[in-house]
Amino acid sequence: MKIIDGGVAAAQGYQATGIYAGIKKKRKDMALVYSMVPAKGAGTFTTNVVKAAPVKWDIKVTKDSEFVQAVVLNSGVANACTGVVGDVNNELMAKAVAEAMNIPIGAVYTASTGVIGKQLPIEVIQEGIKLLATELQDGNEAGTLAAEAIMTTDTYSKEYAVSFVVDGKEVIIGGMAKGSGMIHPNMATMLGVVTTDLAISKELLQEALSADVKCTFNMISVDRDTSTNDSLLLLANGLAGNNEITEKNADYNNFCKALNTVTTNLAKKMAADGEGATKLFEVQVVGANTDEEAIILSKSIITSNLVKTAVFGNDANWGRILCAMGYSGVNFDPDQVDLYIESTDGNLKLVENGMATDYSEEFATQILSAKEVKATADLKTGKATATAWGCDLTYDYVKINADYRS
Amino acid sequence: MKIIDGGVAAAQGYQATGIYAGIKKKRKDMALVYSMVPAKGAGTFTTNVVKAAPVKWDIKVTKDSEFVQAVVLNSGVANACTGVVGDVNNELMAKAVAEAMNIPIGAVYTASTGVIGKQLPIEVIQEGIKLLATELQDGNEAGTLAAEAIMTTDTYSKEYAVSFVVDGKEVIIGGMAKGSGMIHPNMATMLGVVTTDLAISKELLQEALSADVKCTFNMISVDRDTSTNDSLLLLANGLAGNNEITEKNADYNNFCKALNTVTTNLAKKMAADGEGATKLFEVQVVGANTDEEAIILSKSIITSNLVKTAVFGNDANWGRILCAMGYSGVNFDPDQVDLYIESTDGNLKLVENGMATDYSEEFATQILSAKEVKATADLKTGKATATAWGCDLTYDYVKINADYRS
Repeated sequence: MKIIDGGVAAAQGYQATGIYAGIKKKRKDMALVYSMVPAKGAGTFTTNVVKAAPVKWDIKVTKDSEFVQAVVLNSGVANACTGVVGDVNNELMAKAVAEAMNIPIGAVYTASTGVIGKQLPIEVIQEGIKLLATELQDGNEAGTLAAEAIMTTDTYSKEYAVSFVVDGKEVIIGGMAKGSGMIHPNMATMLGVVTTDLAISKELLQEALSADVKCTFNMISVDRDTSTNDSLLLLANGLAGNNEITEKNADYNNFCKALNTVTTNLAKKMAADGEGATKLFEVQVVGANTDEEAIILSKSIITSNLVKTAVFGNDANWGRILCAMGYSGVNFDPDQVDLYIESTDGNLKLVENGMATDYSEEFATQILSAKEVKATADLKTGKATATAWGCDLTYDYVKINADYRS
Repeated sequence: MKIIDGGVAAAQGYQATGIYAGIKKKRKDMALVYSMVPAKGAGTFTTNVVKAAPVKWDIKVTKDSEFVQAVVLNSGVANACTGVVGDVNNELMAKAVAEAMNIPIGAVYTASTGVIGKQLPIEVIQEGIKLLATELQDGNEAGTLAAEAIMTTDTYSKEYAVSFVVDGKEVIIGGMAKGSGMIHPNMATMLGVVTTDLAISKELLQEALSADVKCTFNMISVDRDTSTNDSLLLLANGLAGNNEITEKNADYNNFCKALNTVTTNLAKKMAADGEGATKLFEVQVVGANTDEEAIILSKSIITSNLVKTAVFGNDANWGRILCAMGYSGVNFDPDQVDLYIESTDGNLKLVENGMATDYSEEFATQILSAKEVKATADLKTGKATATAWGCDLTYDYVKINADYRS
């Protein structure tokens, strides 16, 4: 596997672009990703009971459509809590793409992100789609334009791509994603699109994606708020020319590994660029009895406001980490826990058997001051592990969210 | 029932005080509450797997002791994650009170709050207890001194008392509590002590307390972090002279009502004085199918960081409220929800059947700018209701917790 430049338009046969349509005040606000040939589509979506109109649409497309060919996305308005009018507008958005690209409406995925409760400015969007269709292009810049157009409070766009070999053919998989608030994915992230030129059956494509999100997008959290719009879409158009993967063989495993490399990278970028965040906070739980317990414990730590503010303050206030583990719902022996922190500045054992070691607070603060900080909790009872990614809680998080709409 | 002045020393036969012992840098740091005659004791405690030494001690006292007579409390150090040394220190703390007051060690409740992971400065505490014993006093000032001594990041002390009549005898119940971080009680609050001169059986005292916390202390949250030290203690010394309550009759119900008045008041004060908070945020869910669903929904709303920052910004960003309901785990029809806000400045229907009404953003902001704000979500499917209390998430919350230990 090789890391390559590019994102959602890196694989063969994909085009993309991003434009300013007029939904937001100034920044780009619409993107289109297009596969020049029919592609298999897979998706994972929010578990929130309140589902945005595009999420309901995409669930149906994923289930019913033989193939997909386009993903249209807008930022600025989420088209959630918008009733029947919202559903109609979403369908009009898909229809405009179908007409512009001359493909069936069932081959169009839609995605929206932004303020909840406002209706889409559908005429602005229809005009935007006409512009998108004319500006579609190949190449890495195309992917970047699309990644930029789906940003809301993100401070940078998020792309990643790798290549790997199947049947002697080079296969590319690349994607884009956006954060950076209301991020606590459950079955998917806020918005993510991954494309590949691999040939694979639709069933295995979905299975690979569903398995993958459990340890990638579902393991990040910015604010513990699971969005109404979370969608991760995966398109595979087969242009790499490999024999279609129809069983879980070595090729399938290679694909899963490449997919995981892309999604892990995008997920970590999303956590690192969480609203107001100054650093990425990675938490690994090891020595747990079951994977599920390790997952619950690691997520409980990265979502604790008290832990997150301590990380912001570069304060090795490890009691808050043990406290967050303690109220997670998992039963464990706190008197057996070891706790470590590490970064490029070094590593340190803070806790042994549930009690403080004789560590240097000064060195701990130095380690915590890095841009990427990792904590590892060892329960020393089993072999299960899990890794979760979060960020610190800062003044800017409050600032961004106290006046998001204004 | 009558609201009266005072707190934990308001009822007959109780003394209290608070002093500076030297655990913290400047502020008072130890308190003692004393019943001049043996009292029945009841308690509810944290469900955190990581339990502080005093919590483990108090659970045992509540279970095994026929009567209790003293509650000793310190702030500054939580005596949590302190291993066997922590347990020994806690027992020495109880022993010092037993010796100073000439009562059995099993009649002494202990409570600690402050930094996790540090050992108690036990000699400072033993000296402090000698001082507490000599300074015990009657009256309202005594209760206030005690309430002040248990504060950590609280900005004001929290006391409340009421009187009511049983058998023609006036009964008093009063208490104190502290917040204001790591507040998401589950079975109890951070630290609370309530005293009454009512005569009641130990079993009914515990039953009344356990039932009460479910809709009072367990319904508040500052930061969704359930502490390692949560303890709510209730003492009843019988000096009011009523016939001992031994069954759930009208007198018992009167007592429950008085208890609820005191605990609701203390719980709301704790939420309003949450770390960095500028306002109390009350959320009522009505029209739910079951009490449990109403509880889950209301708590999901008050604990959402995105809702809390919107409340701080006086922003009627109601989509975040519906979103928080949606990921709570409760199944409901979002297209049927009505949502209202109210304060002393007026009231407004923001949402009808899951969609925005034609409300004035300006008036909504005016309502939200009050010191106490209430939101009501009506599911319109059943008759169950619940009320939860939280606060906004502010710059000062981050400030306080990014450098709590320094």
